[in-house]
Amino acid sequence: MEAHEKGFFTEANSVEVVTGRNRNASSERLKAVMEVITRKLHEAVKEIEPTQDEWFDAILFLTRTGQLSTEWRQEFILLSDVLGVSMLVDAINNRKPSGASESTVLGPFHIADAPELPMGANICLDQKGEDMFIHGRILDTEGKPIANAVLDVWQANDEGFYDVQQKGIQPDFNLRGVFRTGADGRYWFRAVKPKFYPIPDDGTVGKLLHALGRHPYRPAHLHYILKADGFETLTTHIFDPDDPYINSDAVFGVKESLLAEFRRIDDPGRAESLEFGGPFWEVEHDFVLARDRK
Amino acid sequence: MEAHEKGFFTEANSVEVVTGRNRNASSERLKAVMEVITRKLHEAVKEIEPTQDEWFDAILFLTRTGQLSTEWRQEFILLSDVLGVSMLVDAINNRKPSGASESTVLGPFHIADAPELPMGANICLDQKGEDMFIHGRILDTEGKPIANAVLDVWQANDEGFYDVQQKGIQPDFNLRGVFRTGADGRYWFRAVKPKFYPIPDDGTVGKLLHALGRHPYRPAHLHYILKADGFETLTTHIFDPDDPYINSDAVFGVKESLLAEFRRIDDPGRAESLEFGGPFWEVEHDFVLARDRK
Repeated sequence: MEAHEKGFFTEANSVEVVTGRNRNASSERLKAVMEVITRKLHEAVKEIEPTQDEWFDAILFLTRTGQLSTEWRQEFILLSDVLGVSMLVDAINNRKPSGASESTVLGPFHIADAPELPMGANICLDQKGEDMFIHGRILDTEGKPIANAVLDVWQANDEGFYDVQQKGIQPDFNLRGVFRTGADGRYWFRAVKPKFYPIPDDGTVGKLLHALGRHPYRPAHLHYILKADGFETLTTHIFDPDDPYINSDAVFGVKESLLAEFRRIDDPGRAESLEFGGPFWEVEHDFVLARDRK
Repeated sequence: MEAHEKGFFTEANSVEVVTGRNRNASSERLKAVMEVITRKLHEAVKEIEPTQDEWFDAILFLTRTGQLSTEWRQEFILLSDVLGVSMLVDAINNRKPSGASESTVLGPFHIADAPELPMGANICLDQKGEDMFIHGRILDTEGKPIANAVLDVWQANDEGFYDVQQKGIQPDFNLRGVFRTGADGRYWFRAVKPKFYPIPDDGTVGKLLHALGRHPYRPAHLHYILKADGFETLTTHIFDPDDPYINSDAVFGVKESLLAEFRRIDDPGRAESLEFGGPFWEVEHDFVLARDRK
């Protein structure tokens, strides 16, 4: 027998020898996935040619990344985020038909039981920050309004923190709400202008970002999940295009189509009708949902 | 500006957008390494097209692999081992000139302070197992003996356990020894025939092996580190070619040139001269060291 037939490992045949062991894998999908992972991993090692010390540094980095993860913190998701993998998986799983609004990452701060509120409610419960009026329509790809669409919104406050990050400081459910459209597909609610914020950067991922000369900030945004019967659920954000980090989101969540317009309105009459004390921000943004393809 | 110039992420430009952020990396090496890692990772994701659930399963697998690692156990090294990455890094860092003995992985069971013993000593301290006589020469690539070469040997016992895995059961330093050659370059010592053994398979790596239909065994072997002034240090094994797992080492450590011959000797005269009680195993194996190229 040749060395290859015996299954002995060499630099040249490394991928075939390793993946050749998976003939009896419990599923064809697992076998196919491990074939790709093994091949790309070996290609990377052959191109990088790590020293033994570099290899061991990588082992320690991955180990500490796992060890930093707790019930409250997921450092491997952060790693996936800053390497663009989370956005890539999101993109692959959410290829939308032409004209439909695009998706972006869910993020770790959604909670399932936010209260359903009457249209127009102010989701800012502590009066901190610059007033903002947000409105628009939820449409299908033919431009027709969708009735009974559910809009679930959540955002950071004017200091860049979500309520769940500041329990006892912000009221529970601050800057969260669920709204349901009527026959006209319109939504409107009040809030405050969100601020950019850093992803957690005191762990292995933060150290990596620092070593790469990258900052940890996400530009200001509002999160949405939009649901309607007969349509694909859309998980997305809208972003402030004037944010200092709009072109360098640490997790690559920004898309051209997700840029909203944040207009400064100085109109005492409109302010009064919205129960605002003075100038405010106005954001008008329509969402277009794709019909369910299942 | 085009979306690409603004640095917005798409499926098509994902690698360029992510690696484009590393312009100010703290070292050119880190920048180059992260370029390869990001590119191969994105290639893998694009080929696999994981669902969100599959992606999250991968996140949890890596997290648990880190969390299983302790001062005494390194599950990420095991993962590297079973995917052939450890052997690949070893191969890349130990390309030997023609005629020199080949390397293989160090493994986790070497200890630095094993005792130096007189040539011929029996490293089996508890009289358990089948007697074995091991001898050979340490040579340069011209076939000349190397004097003052240091041979550091360690092995599992006849049940497949190293002393450090059975503290209190095996004597300290059982089946370990350091020997130094004379002018003839010869070495000889006594031991017992080692047995195959499983790598730790009660963690994430064990579960992966099981799902892939792979066993966790390493074929029987002896570990060596060989050092001599003016020569490259050689970390290697010799293997029993008749072992049931010789063609399927869980960590891919076997190379054709590392197969030794384990001969069964039934010769009362030779047994008596070696202070063995009956038939024994004989292994004759020469090592060839490459001259230092630094």
